Amino acid sequence: MKFFNLQKINARYASELKKVAEEVIDSGWYLQGDRVAAFEKSLAEYVGCRYAVTVGNGLDALRLILKAYIEMGIMAEGDEIIVPANTFIASVLAITDNRLVPVFAEPDENTFNLDFSHIESLITPRTRAIMIVHLYGRSCWGAGLVELARKYNLKIIEDNAQAMGALGKVEDLGDSVHTGALGDAAGISFYPTKNLGALGDSGAITTDDDRLAEIVRSLGNYGSGKKYYNEYQGLNSRMDEIQAAFLSVKLKYLDEMNACRNRLADMYSEAIDIPDVILPQAGGKGEHVWHQYVIRTTCRNALQSYLQNEGIATQIHYPVPPHKQNCYREYNSLVFPITEKLSREVLSLPISPEMSESDIDRVSGVINRFFK
Amino acid sequence: MKFFNLQKINARYASELKKVAEEVIDSGWYLQGDRVAAFEKSLAEYVGCRYAVTVGNGLDALRLILKAYIEMGIMAEGDEIIVPANTFIASVLAITDNRLVPVFAEPDENTFNLDFSHIESLITPRTRAIMIVHLYGRSCWGAGLVELARKYNLKIIEDNAQAMGALGKVEDLGDSVHTGALGDAAGISFYPTKNLGALGDSGAITTDDDRLAEIVRSLGNYGSGKKYYNEYQGLNSRMDEIQAAFLSVKLKYLDEMNACRNRLADMYSEAIDIPDVILPQAGGKGEHVWHQYVIRTTCRNALQSYLQNEGIATQIHYPVPPHKQNCYREYNSLVFPITEKLSREVLSLPISPEMSESDIDRVSGVINRFFK
Ligand SMILES: Cc1ncc(COP(=O)(O)O)c(/C=N/[C@@H]2[C@@H](O)[C@@H](OP(=O)(O)OP(=O)(O)OC[C@H]3O[C@@H](n4cc(C)c(=O)[nH]c4=O)C[C@@H]3O)O[C@H](C)[C@H]2O)c1O
Ligand SMILES: Cc1ncc(COP(=O)(O)O)c(/C=N/[C@@H]2[C@@H](O)[C@@H](OP(=O)(O)OP(=O)(O)OC[C@H]3O[C@@H](n4cc(C)c(=O)[nH]c4=O)C[C@@H]3O)O[C@H](C)[C@H]2O)c1O
Repeated sequence: MKFFNLQKINARYASELKKVAEEVIDSGWYLQGDRVAAFEKSLAEYVGCRYAVTVGNGLDALRLILKAYIEMGIMAEGDEIIVPANTFIASVLAITDNRLVPVFAEPDENTFNLDFSHIESLITPRTRAIMIVHLYGRSCWGAGLVELARKYNLKIIEDNAQAMGALGKVEDLGDSVHTGALGDAAGISFYPTKNLGALGDSGAITTDDDRLAEIVRSLGNYGSGKKYYNEYQGLNSRMDEIQAAFLSVKLKYLDEMNACRNRLADMYSEAIDIPDVILPQAGGKGEHVWHQYVIRTTCRNALQSYLQNEGIATQIHYPVPPHKQNCYREYNSLVFPITEKLSREVLSLPISPEMSESDIDRVSGVINRFFK
Repeated sequence: MKFFNLQKINARYASELKKVAEEVIDSGWYLQGDRVAAFEKSLAEYVGCRYAVTVGNGLDALRLILKAYIEMGIMAEGDEIIVPANTFIASVLAITDNRLVPVFAEPDENTFNLDFSHIESLITPRTRAIMIVHLYGRSCWGAGLVELARKYNLKIIEDNAQAMGALGKVEDLGDSVHTGALGDAAGISFYPTKNLGALGDSGAITTDDDRLAEIVRSLGNYGSGKKYYNEYQGLNSRMDEIQAAFLSVKLKYLDEMNACRNRLADMYSEAIDIPDVILPQAGGKGEHVWHQYVIRTTCRNALQSYLQNEGIATQIHYPVPPHKQNCYREYNSLVFPITEKLSREVLSLPISPEMSESDIDRVSGVINRFFK
């Protein structure tokens, strides 16, 4: 069994995808055109924010948000950004690429997400933002976070690479809001395996901040708003028309696919019944879109090999936390016990909308057998 | 008449493009797969170098070359890179993004390319490289350049965004070599309007340097060679499989299309016969692939309006040189008389492979009439 059968997933939409691909090919217009504009509009509507600006990929989305805040004078080289220690390295690369300083925070081992009660002690006069990561598809939000941000005048930046479609409860609104519309700005990844995945690299920024949106758009277009006039020292980071067309097709089915993932997750949580395995928690209604279904066990490596021998592919998200990577030697001596424990214990099981109940039974059965 | 009729150009290959698009959609594999590998192989063969590494766009190609040289210890923050003053701003953005210092050099007004006789006086102990730009499709190469690079131990980096398929004469080899294989490393842009254009953003690096190739590939993949292990603080910059598939189709026709552009350029140069108009020079055999056909005249703006009124669209490459842009205030007071004069006088006429002899006659006729 494949870890993720993207071929089968996209086969559902194949005729629509082929149709829009033909239209784009015939149109003669491949960048910054109507399809990108239409997708940005639908995306902003779906997320529930005023602006969506498409870019080249998820890492660029985060980089450009920070770069724009620097242009706006809201942060400057050497300022600190609080970020979970247990994230995909891209969250941290976005920070260091801007010569900002990542201040790592430990997660809550039950949610895998930031533990807000640990954050206040990390705040210094140079802290400018908290980057939350909705890891594995579970939204990371709460009154504790909002209070801290208000109290210390910090921006909340969402790394929304993994949680398109998830909801966060906004206590003072008594309301549920989509990830991407919770903080001050959010970066989305449409890497092909994401819940909303393109057929190549792309990403987007969502925000209500008109100035931020305008600057980010310019920064991704060589720093230019008006052709051949450059206000900023920008980069090239744009979504192709063909990817926007693909994403417009797939966005229509996102909620349906997420509901599917939810059912599969429920089945796993029913079927795996082993004291040595810690199952992931769903959170409140709509809070989890199950980008990954991640179990924990102290015999992770042995279990992974066992599953592999049974023909079941699994993945580890992620085996080495950013602060332990060779590229961050300056942080290698830091110690984050929860993060490091998680990196040794987590195992992502196959979960993708095209899986059947019997697939889930099969995987669960092998896991239960391993521990017997 | 459109300035550039990309719709008509790509219509020639439409059935092939649609076929490969369908194949990619069906494959379920959208990044870092066989199509990218195959295109990289064909590209390296075509250019005549050992390595081709695909990336997200042309600006990234140049940025990542410089970033890799920094990782290799060949240059460091504050070092100087000589670059033509009259280029598209991306050449300069690649330099400043790496916190290297652009040292602008005036062009030869007959070729629009770097005037090698001016360069030696710009070299300082901090100079590390000369970035040549094969502007408008004309290759920029010569013994003078090679001698300087040897004498001062400088890298030669080619900005090969505009000249895919052009040849530079390598005097000591008595041979002609494709742009992209002339210097130590080259950045290519496959922006849709380029002579070899994708159907979206993409780019590539070509080089014979195995270490450079390896580092650039890792830098464009989050700094990771082995999945989830990060050696470098990298970025995300990759070519999509679908763009690689499109480019593999179009690469087959590149020489034919360039031959077409050459014929059209010859026709223009025959048909426009006005003392007040300076025509572009073709250079030696194969040296020019006519990405743009750029004439010069002191009444450029009036001529452009006149053509516009006759329904003929033209463009200006480029109206504001990089050192005069708002984003480079620190260079605004510099004076480059040739570059500034060119920015006031250049006008790019429509030139694209799908144009007919009568289209060229039409444009030339209106220009001749304007000056009568
Ligand atoms: C929190 C956070 N922040 C920022 C980012 C940065 O966003 P980005 O710049 O857009 O990558 C990420 C990205 N995050 C992801 C990261 O989570 C990981 O994702 P992943 O799903 O484990 O990726 P994978 O192993 O390549 O694919 C999973 C499976 O799917 C199969 N597959 C894959 C591809 C590409 C295909 O075409 N067809 C397939 O069948 C192969 C595997 O079995 O690695 C990616 C390169 C990152 O984009 C993130 O998680
Ligand atoms: C020296 C040098 N170095 C680095 C670079 C950076 O490479 P990059 O990062 O890949 O852009 C460049 C890029 N250079 C080009 C630059 O030369 C300029 O190119 P251009 O051909 O004048 O671009 P344009 O005005 O958008 O398109 C020309 C005509 O074509 C039409 N068109 C356009 C598109 C996109 C379409 O889909 N369909 C159409 O019909 C509209 C216009 O009439 O502007 C681009 C944004 C850059 O990528 C460079 O010149």
